[in-house]
Amino acid sequence: MIESRLQRLMVLQSAQFLDCVALMPGPNLRYLTGLTMHVSERPTLALFPRQGPPTLILPVLEAQSLPTDLRSEMQLFPYSDEQGPQDAFQVAAAALGLAGKRIGVEFLQMRVMELRRLEQAAPDCQILAIEAFLQELRSCKDASELEQMRRAIHITEDALLTTMDRVCPGQTEEEIAAELRMAMLRAGAEEVPFVLVVAGPRTASPHAGPSSRPVEPGDVLIVDCGAVSGGYTADITRTFAIGEVPPELKRVYEVVRAANEAGRAAVRPGATAQEVDRATRRVITEAGYGEYFVHRTGHGLGLEVHEPPYIVEGNAEVLQPGMAFTVEPGVYIPGLGGVRIEDDVVVTSAGVETLTTYPRELRSL
Amino acid sequence: MIESRLQRLMVLQSAQFLDCVALMPGPNLRYLTGLTMHVSERPTLALFPRQGPPTLILPVLEAQSLPTDLRSEMQLFPYSDEQGPQDAFQVAAAALGLAGKRIGVEFLQMRVMELRRLEQAAPDCQILAIEAFLQELRSCKDASELEQMRRAIHITEDALLTTMDRVCPGQTEEEIAAELRMAMLRAGAEEVPFVLVVAGPRTASPHAGPSSRPVEPGDVLIVDCGAVSGGYTADITRTFAIGEVPPELKRVYEVVRAANEAGRAAVRPGATAQEVDRATRRVITEAGYGEYFVHRTGHGLGLEVHEPPYIVEGNAEVLQPGMAFTVEPGVYIPGLGGVRIEDDVVVTSAGVETLTTYPRELRSL
Repeated sequence: MIESRLQRLMVLQSAQFLDCVALMPGPNLRYLTGLTMHVSERPTLALFPRQGPPTLILPVLEAQSLPTDLRSEMQLFPYSDEQGPQDAFQVAAAALGLAGKRIGVEFLQMRVMELRRLEQAAPDCQILAIEAFLQELRSCKDASELEQMRRAIHITEDALLTTMDRVCPGQTEEEIAAELRMAMLRAGAEEVPFVLVVAGPRTASPHAGPSSRPVEPGDVLIVDCGAVSGGYTADITRTFAIGEVPPELKRVYEVVRAANEAGRAAVRPGATAQEVDRATRRVITEAGYGEYFVHRTGHGLGLEVHEPPYIVEGNAEVLQPGMAFTVEPGVYIPGLGGVRIEDDVVVTSAGVETLTTYPRELRSL
Repeated sequence: MIESRLQRLMVLQSAQFLDCVALMPGPNLRYLTGLTMHVSERPTLALFPRQGPPTLILPVLEAQSLPTDLRSEMQLFPYSDEQGPQDAFQVAAAALGLAGKRIGVEFLQMRVMELRRLEQAAPDCQILAIEAFLQELRSCKDASELEQMRRAIHITEDALLTTMDRVCPGQTEEEIAAELRMAMLRAGAEEVPFVLVVAGPRTASPHAGPSSRPVEPGDVLIVDCGAVSGGYTADITRTFAIGEVPPELKRVYEVVRAANEAGRAAVRPGATAQEVDRATRRVITEAGYGEYFVHRTGHGLGLEVHEPPYIVEGNAEVLQPGMAFTVEPGVYIPGLGGVRIEDDVVVTSAGVETLTTYPRELRSL
């Protein structure tokens, strides 16, 4: 599988006239090699020349813990703390003949530090953005990837089921978030990159984080969280009621629920990303809340929590089977509160499959 | 406090002839403003001109959740998903007159994406590295910072005390790691950025992560973990024995323990970072294990898990009161196993205070 991914990289690389692709530790490198390294103050950079084995510049102590199969398949340029990294950059760049060449890098991953070291080691090289091209490589999920996503979602929903039933007035947002995080870890999460729990008036702020405020009867409660399995992240949001909430928020809830449903119904191969955004936005606008839907409808999901395709007006990208993303319309009314309902979907040859299954009716806790 | 930090920034900025400092979301921005934003595919960049208010380019939905006091003290250039970020970069750069100016950026934080947007918005600007200069700003911890570090360490040690007593043969490394992580969250950790639990022969690899291997009698067990409090991270490593371990590992353990003690004893204001490294290394080398001590003695600790000062040969930086870092000698013998003992220390006017208190004798579980 890794083999075929590397072959697809080579094909795309030739089509872009790139002599080399340079990847940072992160999702693209993991996708292409299985390597799960971390970004630190010690640079690690993988170089994929158009011909020859993948090449890795890395700290000597990372080299020792590489899986043995990778160690034999890659050309390694380790450096010690005493040597520092620049020599390894110079020697690797010379070995690959990178001076004056076209090098593709990840503008969203590579830091100025690695860029400057690479430019110094490969004089007169041209640095080109390869985000769009790696997006093409990773955007359609294969069966093994979807299996991990399903597992991540299962862990997340399992934790939501056990945790939300025990929420009661007086608990703080932070306490609920900590319970949920622990429940996900207990259910087998590899990591829990985010748990947003926000209640009451602060729900009008779509990106607010948990605070020490206790939840109260009459609050809406937004929970947005996701567990990781095998590197793949779930991302689900549900909005709950603590006791009885104001009638307008109940109306807003039903509008957002209808928007979520309309968005998911608009997903099919051949539709564009912006059509899905238009479908959710139309429902909310027609109900008179258009100005309060202040973000895009969704984002791709996979080895990154946010990745292409972005479900936003202006993105005419055509949906294809295997693309996975969120559908998460929301309405946020200053002074009153907010509602968001987020599901994870995958485009199938027949249309769409919604991977998240947690109930979408307004539950009162 | 934030006020005085910003004033120190201005002074250093003038001394470096920098017209502007551009900071990414991360530790430096948090230190200077209290802002805890995240790096995502939507760029956020703070600009600190030599005169005038701090300026922030950010997604519109992040702008809404800014603390109100910051909202009034900063000049904001928010952008929506529909507009995209480049206009905000252009307008902000024009407002600050950045064309042709000297701009300091974090080479370890800023990505090629932000660099290219900034270069486009401020034609002919000079981009300069400011890591060393921000290091100067953050390296001596004040009382409020040390208080958070003590709290992070207390949480971590509390979790170690409750978790390690219950470890028994048959548990896997991953299970022990998950227990420890949960214990830290229960004890009040804001986040748990890392929990390494490795046993048996794999301990010979200093950066290996937890696996599904059950621990067995005769194993050494290395636990390296840290909780976060108020943004500040603890970092502690202890090596345990599962039942009875081979005599050579016991000898190695005592050598590493003596090296740790010698390293901590070498810490005082006026000593250099490399002298601390030499102190630990001397003990290990004299015992005949020098070739197996394959990493530096330690690293600074604070808003980042790894930050200056680095305790390594070649670093002649002079230690000053308030500097906080790890002392973590280790010996890793291929085929046999490894031992590491890591403490967190702070330089005081009198010498050194060891913040970590977990026992350093070899405990058998």
